[in-house]
Amino acid sequence: MIPVEEALQTVLRVAKQHLEPVAVPLSDALGHVLAEDVLALEPLPPFPASIKDGYAVVASDGPGEYPVILESRAGSDATPLKVTPGTIAYVTTGGPIPDGADAVVQVEDTEQVTNTSDVLKRVKILTTVTQGYDIRTVGSDIEKDSIVLKAGELIDSAEIGLLATVGVTSVKVYRQPSIAVLSTGDELVEADTKTLKWGQIRDSNRAMLLAAATQQKCKIVDLGISRDEEESIDKVFDMAFSSDIDILLTSGGVSMGDKDLVKPCLAKRGTIYFEKVLMKPGKPLTFAEVSGKERSKRILAFGLPGNPVSCMVCFDLFVIPAIRLLSGWSNPQLPRVHARISHPIKGDPFRPEYHRAVLKWALNDGSGRPGYVAESTGKQASSRLLSMKSANALLELPATNQILPAGTSIQAILLSDKVNTQFLCESNIDASFRQPGP
Amino acid sequence: MIPVEEALQTVLRVAKQHLEPVAVPLSDALGHVLAEDVLALEPLPPFPASIKDGYAVVASDGPGEYPVILESRAGSDATPLKVTPGTIAYVTTGGPIPDGADAVVQVEDTEQVTNTSDVLKRVKILTTVTQGYDIRTVGSDIEKDSIVLKAGELIDSAEIGLLATVGVTSVKVYRQPSIAVLSTGDELVEADTKTLKWGQIRDSNRAMLLAAATQQKCKIVDLGISRDEEESIDKVFDMAFSSDIDILLTSGGVSMGDKDLVKPCLAKRGTIYFEKVLMKPGKPLTFAEVSGKERSKRILAFGLPGNPVSCMVCFDLFVIPAIRLLSGWSNPQLPRVHARISHPIKGDPFRPEYHRAVLKWALNDGSGRPGYVAESTGKQASSRLLSMKSANALLELPATNQILPAGTSIQAILLSDKVNTQFLCESNIDASFRQPGP
Ligand SMILES: [Mg+2]
Ligand SMILES: [Mg+2]
Repeated sequence: MIPVEEALQTVLRVAKQHLEPVAVPLSDALGHVLAEDVLALEPLPPFPASIKDGYAVVASDGPGEYPVILESRAGSDATPLKVTPGTIAYVTTGGPIPDGADAVVQVEDTEQVTNTSDVLKRVKILTTVTQGYDIRTVGSDIEKDSIVLKAGELIDSAEIGLLATVGVTSVKVYRQPSIAVLSTGDELVEADTKTLKWGQIRDSNRAMLLAAATQQKCKIVDLGISRDEEESIDKVFDMAFSSDIDILLTSGGVSMGDKDLVKPCLAKRGTIYFEKVLMKPGKPLTFAEVSGKERSKRILAFGLPGNPVSCMVCFDLFVIPAIRLLSGWSNPQLPRVHARISHPIKGDPFRPEYHRAVLKWALNDGSGRPGYVAESTGKQASSRLLSMKSANALLELPATNQILPAGTSIQAILLSDKVNTQFLCESNIDASFRQPGP
Repeated sequence: MIPVEEALQTVLRVAKQHLEPVAVPLSDALGHVLAEDVLALEPLPPFPASIKDGYAVVASDGPGEYPVILESRAGSDATPLKVTPGTIAYVTTGGPIPDGADAVVQVEDTEQVTNTSDVLKRVKILTTVTQGYDIRTVGSDIEKDSIVLKAGELIDSAEIGLLATVGVTSVKVYRQPSIAVLSTGDELVEADTKTLKWGQIRDSNRAMLLAAATQQKCKIVDLGISRDEEESIDKVFDMAFSSDIDILLTSGGVSMGDKDLVKPCLAKRGTIYFEKVLMKPGKPLTFAEVSGKERSKRILAFGLPGNPVSCMVCFDLFVIPAIRLLSGWSNPQLPRVHARISHPIKGDPFRPEYHRAVLKWALNDGSGRPGYVAESTGKQASSRLLSMKSANALLELPATNQILPAGTSIQAILLSDKVNTQFLCESNIDASFRQPGP
């Protein structure tokens, strides 16, 4: 039985590094990690641009009435007309500043002159502006030849915008792993089974793991349910390990029973790195590496426990970091924060416990300051999937038989995709609340 | 110019409530909000089940040598054999406890008896167990006829597992909105344009907004780029508002210029609720409601500013809550936390500022306790999309010309999907770190 941290380091060491880079169109790049630096070939803005709708002026001219000699519109053709002292040009937000002008006066600080016989429109400038006022200089947003995104950066929507800006519509990213999921167990029947026979339960792990892998942006392969028979497991394994998957997840078949055949079936095919972890839930977790059809292909195999909570906790703690490492994340671990428990919790005497909880951000976490407050999801039996429902964190309880009193600050693992729903603010939060430093 | 909170409440009031429920297969349910309560028709476990691999015993028998009269396997057929005092049965994890037995002794607390001439295998029980020991009683995980998931709950992977457990493979969820995205501006060219002419820039907002809407699980429609001409915008609007979209996003065309035609084109078709918000960036944000082809169909229209940062910040602050409300979220707003700034920041004199920042969780946030530390992403020009890169939070700076000193605790909006990458722990975090309460 090895400690959690050692088990995780083993997984990351065996997973080793990101998968190969692949080119994807910009519309598919979201959520991938960049595999190349991206440069700006032109500066942004590529021309001096107006920050406001208004008039491009010669700053030293100052307030007064001027003829509008030109309308310089965003995207309009270049024009030979120059703004000379004593003249001004109409400009729009983002539009180019004509040669000769060196500042912009926003339309709110001007007045149209009516009753003029002039062929040119005349406008009264009401304020004095300094040189460069309300002008974005060339390259002020992005310098020419600068790196706008570095290899290793995760592509979110803002990054998609940046890629579009610099004209990148196909981008090299690290390939995301393909994951196959198998449930094992004579007791399991498909979820759509209407009537259960004696001794049967529906398979929940497979649907759950496929969803969890999808959430991590993996390609998924559903391998169905295997009976607790060596021949049956062998057949699925042979098929899976000769396919192009990167990770195999099984659930069940890793306990002490005589029909727990996942470990021996993995051992025949590859290297088992560990087969028990000092944690609650999740103790029977098994991890192996198997060579694929091609010699260079390596497949990570996780023998997850059959109890659905153990299965899910092991996925969060070990499989997600493996997926992220393969996908190119530089920090593949789930984020950790601290939270104060709102009620006493008793730790396990022997094993560190990953206690499912709902974290909320409170203006007063119990210490008089803002912080996370954690509430247990109730009975923590590893078969009770309801304890994972709505959980957005795993409290890392130390292995101690002691009761941790309410208010204790405990390290917690944030469960990524549930953050949005569950980090609810107190509804009475005061939008103007600001607490100065100590 | 209305305050941010009033603008947001207006959006939520107009959006009103979730879209209609639709039935989706379990494999498509992830990320949706349940539109119905889900009941468990059977208890879980449906039979008394063993927690361990071992032997089902009559607890009062106590330690000693017993014949194994039966192998009760998970999923095996019911058997008429009963465990009577003086006999035991082999059981596996999750397998049913045979009638007559009332406790389980795990295999680790037993010994095989060899050298026996008996036809039945004999096993030595080494420990005393109490009645019910290592047995999950019927319904201990899920009670029969209990509600396992309530309407309004967000479906994450654990919830998918729960649905499978209770045999639900098609589930009613609220429909997620369909969003169309249009860029406007004479200066804009497609992202794949190799060489820019004078006054042109590439359209970044559309790719960015389409990605951001995809991230919110919306169906997306790409409406391309419209020139700054009323006729051109009218044509796209007519097409969009007679389609089955729920939300229209435009960017650009909402400033003070004479070619800023989005507002008048919206006003012709529906009700404009606001057209300026007291915020930085994002001031020109316009919000309208337009009736669709069918009388009952309502389409929310957001005229987002053209500057990419303003555009994205308005999406985060106003469009995400609208999407979530339509999708059935009970708390559609992005979560708020507090963070201490790692360096001084100056607020705007007039408008509350949404300052892009990277939040990290630190063991010491500057106050001597764990907490979020915020670092600015640098120059906050609304045209500088690099200020959104890697940002995982918007610091809500009050409208004050003052410099907020380093260490000030400031309210921050967590930008959902970037949480995973950016809430990095200090690498030296001590896994055993526990801070007791005050
Ligand atoms: Mg099993
Ligand atoms: Mg424009």
